[in-house]
Amino acid sequence: MSAPIAHGGGITAAAAAFGGKPEDWLDLSTGINPCPVDLPEIPARAWHRLPDRHLMDEARVAARNHYGSGEILPLPVPGTQSVIQLLPRLVRQGSKVVVTDDRVAVTDNRVAVVSPTYGEYARAFASAGFVVDAVGDIAAIGAEHRLAVVVNPNNPDGRAWPADVLLGLHDRMKAANGFLVVDEAFGDTDPTLSLAARAHELSNLVIFRSFGKFFGLAGLRLGFVIARDDILACFEDWLGPWAVSGPAQSLAASLLRSDVSAIRSRIDERCAGLHGALAAAGLRTAGGTALFSLVADARAGDIYTHLCRHHILVRKFDYAPDWLRFGLAPDPAADRRLGEALQRFER
Amino acid sequence: MSAPIAHGGGITAAAAAFGGKPEDWLDLSTGINPCPVDLPEIPARAWHRLPDRHLMDEARVAARNHYGSGEILPLPVPGTQSVIQLLPRLVRQGSKVVVTDDRVAVTDNRVAVVSPTYGEYARAFASAGFVVDAVGDIAAIGAEHRLAVVVNPNNPDGRAWPADVLLGLHDRMKAANGFLVVDEAFGDTDPTLSLAARAHELSNLVIFRSFGKFFGLAGLRLGFVIARDDILACFEDWLGPWAVSGPAQSLAASLLRSDVSAIRSRIDERCAGLHGALAAAGLRTAGGTALFSLVADARAGDIYTHLCRHHILVRKFDYAPDWLRFGLAPDPAADRRLGEALQRFER
Repeated sequence: MSAPIAHGGGITAAAAAFGGKPEDWLDLSTGINPCPVDLPEIPARAWHRLPDRHLMDEARVAARNHYGSGEILPLPVPGTQSVIQLLPRLVRQGSKVVVTDDRVAVTDNRVAVVSPTYGEYARAFASAGFVVDAVGDIAAIGAEHRLAVVVNPNNPDGRAWPADVLLGLHDRMKAANGFLVVDEAFGDTDPTLSLAARAHELSNLVIFRSFGKFFGLAGLRLGFVIARDDILACFEDWLGPWAVSGPAQSLAASLLRSDVSAIRSRIDERCAGLHGALAAAGLRTAGGTALFSLVADARAGDIYTHLCRHHILVRKFDYAPDWLRFGLAPDPAADRRLGEALQRFER
Repeated sequence: MSAPIAHGGGITAAAAAFGGKPEDWLDLSTGINPCPVDLPEIPARAWHRLPDRHLMDEARVAARNHYGSGEILPLPVPGTQSVIQLLPRLVRQGSKVVVTDDRVAVTDNRVAVVSPTYGEYARAFASAGFVVDAVGDIAAIGAEHRLAVVVNPNNPDGRAWPADVLLGLHDRMKAANGFLVVDEAFGDTDPTLSLAARAHELSNLVIFRSFGKFFGLAGLRLGFVIARDDILACFEDWLGPWAVSGPAQSLAASLLRSDVSAIRSRIDERCAGLHGALAAAGLRTAGGTALFSLVADARAGDIYTHLCRHHILVRKFDYAPDWLRFGLAPDPAADRRLGEALQRFER
C-alpha cells in the first residue's frame, strides 16, 4: 500500500487548522464547476431498485451523443478513479506477475505517465508493482512502455496536446502491443481537443471522461470510459454488477441530453472573474483550463498560508512548491473576496 | 472473464419477453425491502463536492452505532459487490501468482464458499484463478482453504449459522493464516445473528453489511465492511479515493441514526402477506428470511413462466430448477395479485 496523495477538497481539515466553520470557507482547491446545475427529478425507482440494464443503456446513449463517440457507447463507471485503479489489471493481461508475501513484482512492465499530472495514475501502477516513468514529453515514450497516460488538457498546468500528436503516439503504442490512455477529465469546456469521435478506429486507445467536474456534481461519482468493446467488457467485469448508482445513471441520462451551452457560458464567466482577481494581484498564470488556473510564484507557500488565514483554500503541490492551483469561485462576490485577500498579501 | 450471473431485477428484459410495460410488472425477483423509506434531505454539497473525510466519518460513526461494531468504524463501500471483487486480492497477498497471456494461475490458493449461495463470490475467485470449493457445510472447510465465505443468513435458503459455529470456523481459519468472510447482507431483520459486536476480537474476520436491502435503497450502491484496521485500509486503498458517493454517505449518516423499528415492522407485515399468498396456493417454503421466501416445488419452471405471463417476476436458479425465490410485495393489493395469479396456475 502506498501513501495516499493529498488532493484538493480538504476543507474540513483546513478549517480545523486555521479556524472558521467549513461552510464559511471559500473552496478553490478543486477543478469542479462551482455552480452546480439544478438537479433534474430522479425517479423513485432509481433509488429503490438495483440499476438495471435499461437505465444504464439510457445513460450510455446520452453519453455517446454528448461526447460524440459515434459507434461506441461509453461505459458508465463510479468515477474515473475507479478505472484508474483497474488499469494495472488491463496491462497485466499478457505479462508475468510474481507475488511473494506482500510484494508484487511484475516483470516486463513499464508504463509512462506524461507528468506532472494527476497523481493517482503513478500511484495505482506503482502499488501494483509496475515501473512508472514520469516523462515530461510524449517523445520520451517508447516501445518499452506497455501503457502511456496523457491527461488532455492536463491537470494542473492545462497543457493541451494536438490530436495528430496523440494519434501518432497511439499508433506507436499499438505497434508495440500497448495502450494509450487519454484522460479528458477537463475536456468538456473545449470539445475540440477530444479524441472521442476517432475512438472507434483507434483500437488501443482508452478515453476517460469525467461527469462531475463540468456539471458541478463531483459527489455523484460518475465517469465514462470510451474504448473498444472488449476493453469496456473487461472494465465492466472487473467492477462487477451494479457498479454505478441508480441516481447517477438517471442524472446522466437527463443532463447529458440537455443543452449545456449555459453551463459553458457560466464557467467562462467564472473563469474571467478568477483571471481578473489573479491579474489584479499581479500573479502570473502558468497555464490552466476554463475550470482552474495555475499560478507560478516563488512565494506560493506563503500565499497559500495567507489565503488559509482568510479561510480560502487553494491547491498546493508537494512536487512543485512554486505552484498554486486556483479553482473557480461561485460568484462575483467570491471573486472579490479572493481579490481582496490577495491584495492584502505582504509582498 | 467468466460469464455474468443472471441476477434478479431484470424487469425490462422480462417485459420484453412477456409483454407489458416494465412499470406495470410486479417485481418479486430481489430481496430488497419493497417499501423504501422517505428520503431525508440531502445537502447540496453532498452532490456538488467530492465527498470529504468529514462526511465519511459521520457515516462511519452512524454505521458503528447501528451495526454495533464497538471499536470498529465500518468502512463505507460502493455496494458490497465492490469488495467481493477485491477479495481475491486480499488472499493473494502472501501467495504466488503467475499470469501468462490472459490466464491467471494462482498456486497454493483454494477458497471455500458455503453453498448454494450468492453466486458472485465463486465468480470473483474463479475469474482470478482460484480454486473454489462449493461446500455444503462448514465442517468441510479445512486448512487448505485460504478464505471461507459464509452468507448469514444465507441467500436464497435463509440458512442461519449460530455464532459459536462461526467463531469456531474463524479460529480454524486464523490458525491456518486464512480469513473468514461473513456476509450479513440480510442480517438487518434479525440482528441477533450478527458477529459485528465480536469483530474487534476476531482478527481474521471480515463482515459485509448491505445498506440498500433493508432500507429499500438498492440503487444507492452502499455497503459497509467491518474488519480490523489494516484490512479496512487495504480495501480503502484498492477502491481508491472518493469511492462512495456523497448522497450515499449523507443518507447513511441520517438513516443509520434513525429509529428503524417501523421499517422492521413493515417488513414483517409484508413478509406475513407473502407467506399468506404462498400458503393459500399450497406452495411449500424451503426457507427464507424476512425479506424473501424460497419455494421448493418440482413445477418451479412452469410456475415461473406462468407468473411471467401475469407480469410477475420471481427469481429462478440455474443450479436448482426446483427453487423459486419470492421477494416481498409492496402492499396487500400486490399480495392479492400474486395470490390470484398463483391460484390460476394449472396443477
